[in-house]
Amino acid sequence: YSNPQEIYFSREMLDRLGGKRTDNAWLDAKQSEPGTIYLLFSNLSPMVSSSQEDDSAEAEIKLCRFGYEAVKDLLLKPATTLIFLGVEKRKKPSSSSQSVERVQGPPVWFAIGTDEDAAELLKRCREKNCSFPKSANRDLLKFNEEEAGVVAQARSVLAWHSRYSFCPTCGSGTKLDEGGYKRSCLNSDCRSLKGVHNTCYPRVDPVVIMLVIHPNGNQCLLGRKTIFPVGMFSCLAGFIEPGEAIEDAVRREVEEESGVKVGPVQYVCCQPWPMPSNLMIGCLAVAISTDIKVDESEIEDARWFTRQQAIESLLRGAGPAFTVPPSQTIAHQLIRHWIGMNSNL
Amino acid sequence: YSNPQEIYFSREMLDRLGGKRTDNAWLDAKQSEPGTIYLLFSNLSPMVSSSQEDDSAEAEIKLCRFGYEAVKDLLLKPATTLIFLGVEKRKKPSSSSQSVERVQGPPVWFAIGTDEDAAELLKRCREKNCSFPKSANRDLLKFNEEEAGVVAQARSVLAWHSRYSFCPTCGSGTKLDEGGYKRSCLNSDCRSLKGVHNTCYPRVDPVVIMLVIHPNGNQCLLGRKTIFPVGMFSCLAGFIEPGEAIEDAVRREVEEESGVKVGPVQYVCCQPWPMPSNLMIGCLAVAISTDIKVDESEIEDARWFTRQQAIESLLRGAGPAFTVPPSQTIAHQLIRHWIGMNSNL
Ligand SMILES: Nc1ncnc2c1ncn2[C@@H]1O[C@H](COP(=O)(O)O)[C@@H](O)[C@H]1O
Ligand SMILES: Nc1ncnc2c1ncn2[C@@H]1O[C@H](COP(=O)(O)O)[C@@H](O)[C@H]1O
Ligand SMILES: [Mg+2]
Ligand SMILES: [Mg+2]
Ligand SMILES: [Mg+2]
Ligand SMILES: [Mg+2]
Ligand SMILES: [Mg+2]
Ligand SMILES: [Mg+2]
Ligand SMILES: [Zn+2]
Ligand SMILES: [Zn+2]
Repeated sequence: YSNPQEIYFSREMLDRLGGKRTDNAWLDAKQSEPGTIYLLFSNLSPMVSSSQEDDSAEAEIKLCRFGYEAVKDLLLKPATTLIFLGVEKRKKPSSSSQSVERVQGPPVWFAIGTDEDAAELLKRCREKNCSFPKSANRDLLKFNEEEAGVVAQARSVLAWHSRYSFCPTCGSGTKLDEGGYKRSCLNSDCRSLKGVHNTCYPRVDPVVIMLVIHPNGNQCLLGRKTIFPVGMFSCLAGFIEPGEAIEDAVRREVEEESGVKVGPVQYVCCQPWPMPSNLMIGCLAVAISTDIKVDESEIEDARWFTRQQAIESLLRGAGPAFTVPPSQTIAHQLIRHWIGMNSNL
Repeated sequence: YSNPQEIYFSREMLDRLGGKRTDNAWLDAKQSEPGTIYLLFSNLSPMVSSSQEDDSAEAEIKLCRFGYEAVKDLLLKPATTLIFLGVEKRKKPSSSSQSVERVQGPPVWFAIGTDEDAAELLKRCREKNCSFPKSANRDLLKFNEEEAGVVAQARSVLAWHSRYSFCPTCGSGTKLDEGGYKRSCLNSDCRSLKGVHNTCYPRVDPVVIMLVIHPNGNQCLLGRKTIFPVGMFSCLAGFIEPGEAIEDAVRREVEEESGVKVGPVQYVCCQPWPMPSNLMIGCLAVAISTDIKVDESEIEDARWFTRQQAIESLLRGAGPAFTVPPSQTIAHQLIRHWIGMNSNL
């Protein structure tokens, strides 16, 4: 992947400082420091302010950032979930850095998940046009690159807490540990407390997403789910199964969903996708058969599109054969990569 | 990865036939067919027969295969976990295929997890030198390539059932569904039953494992954990975190564990690792700093080794600087890949 365009959700503006997660004294001290930044989530949706009144697709949104004083009451409530996100990565250390920063270190970020009433929460903010966007798949694509990365991390971890509050091994309640990166069973006899087990750690679900290239090199296979906007086609994708390699998952999912057989597979790039906590592993795959047989339980259509059709869609020309997914998706970037790759030959 | 040596645990001799998992009539019918093959697991360990009396490192082991009659009593017990593994991939269809297969299709494989007494279970087998190996990390590396792939799939899924029998969302019991690839909450009011949620599906934990190359191109960074055999050094590795890309996880884990900063990262190949259900994502990484500062909570040592030292270790020469991990590990293959890559230049 010689010239990677940056993938949305993957920029890391924070250093996660995993070593500090077990340092409760440090975490406690940082909570009340003046430079510390809190993000507020309701229902896995972050509080954001919008530059425009309307919610057009173009409008960028920004995370609402709170200081300690504005959220300290929430921190005391038992239903609140507090996640330590990390500290701002230092740009080149410069003598002009603020004196506060030189003493206290770079600002620390936390995410708060709360079940307080959303309308009440919005009153805490001084920004205009604040909201908790409803449509994760659409609205979470409107951040700038830096904030998108923070949102990916925070939302994935919060989503795990919201669905994994009971111990899968014994059914007891669990408590949050290690800055939000662990849950420990409250039943002291539980097997999950003996040794290290994945039941205690956040889940990351690896998914393969692939652009399948026709044996003639000049067409690509795209499919659409019923829930897609009219006219949109995208890459096929599917969850990697236990005991399966990436390349084999690509071959299996393509054949399951489209009936097309795949030979060589090449990894291209990946994307964290916080809906709720997927890792999209993007590949190019070369087909060794061409007949399409759609599995209608998974997708409603799959077709070969020519390179020219893909180019026209990317350029948003008039009346394209299909609409590409938005540029924030790895599917879009895989199509663009294929086009670029070929036009460079 | 131009010339991939096959990675242990990744050969797929079965077609998983995911579409059949919801077809209970088909699954039921297949259970009692004469060609059907059952594997028996006790404590996540498969019953195997060994070619030799001693359990030397070289001895190959084989899965004990059972027919329906030999296990049908186990299938009736509530504590038994039955997993549909798939059907044997057809080699080229030939007119000489047996008539049974022409009527019934290729043999179907199931894995059985049972809590019956291990010694009693062993009496069911007609093979000699049968056992349930105790040391997964060592003994599961002794299969041939085909059986290793089946073991990876079966053990990962069984391990999930053994630790995820309660619903993480509400704490209720769950039941096995879809041939063993799903667990459904028994509490009909549970949120996990509305929509599709990962709580119901097997877990696969993506892990990055990387060979870090010195900026001079001629040394590689290896580390050792306290539990390793004396003298062994291996690649650094770590779990991918929520909201993180593969390449960033490589950079973070290397810096956390060794203090070395990494620049470019390249995916090489991957390996399913069923202890209990990891996906090892193998990368080459180029260091942009060289000072080592070991994180002693994770590893006990980390060092730069020269290419010549790595070659001597791979060739098992006398008195090598370190011992490489066994050839069945992706760490071994990454080291071999680096050596090969450079000597081809
Ligand atoms: N971790 C998971 N999260 C959600 N759905 C899963 C997961 N693993 C398997 N599935 C199933 O996979 C289906 C989506 O198919 P695919 O993405 O093509 O693998 C879902 O409807 C679920 O039935
Ligand atoms: N899914 C997981 N399974 C087991 N341990 C995990 C997992 N996720 C994070 N960990 C933690 O990661 C440690 C191992 O470090 P590393 O493999 O370097 O990331 C374990 O001791 C756990 O504390
Ligand atoms: Mg699928
Ligand atoms: Mg699937
Ligand atoms: Mg799919
Ligand atoms: Mg680590
Ligand atoms: Mg780690
Ligand atoms: Mg590690
Ligand atoms: Zn428990
Ligand atoms: Zn439930």
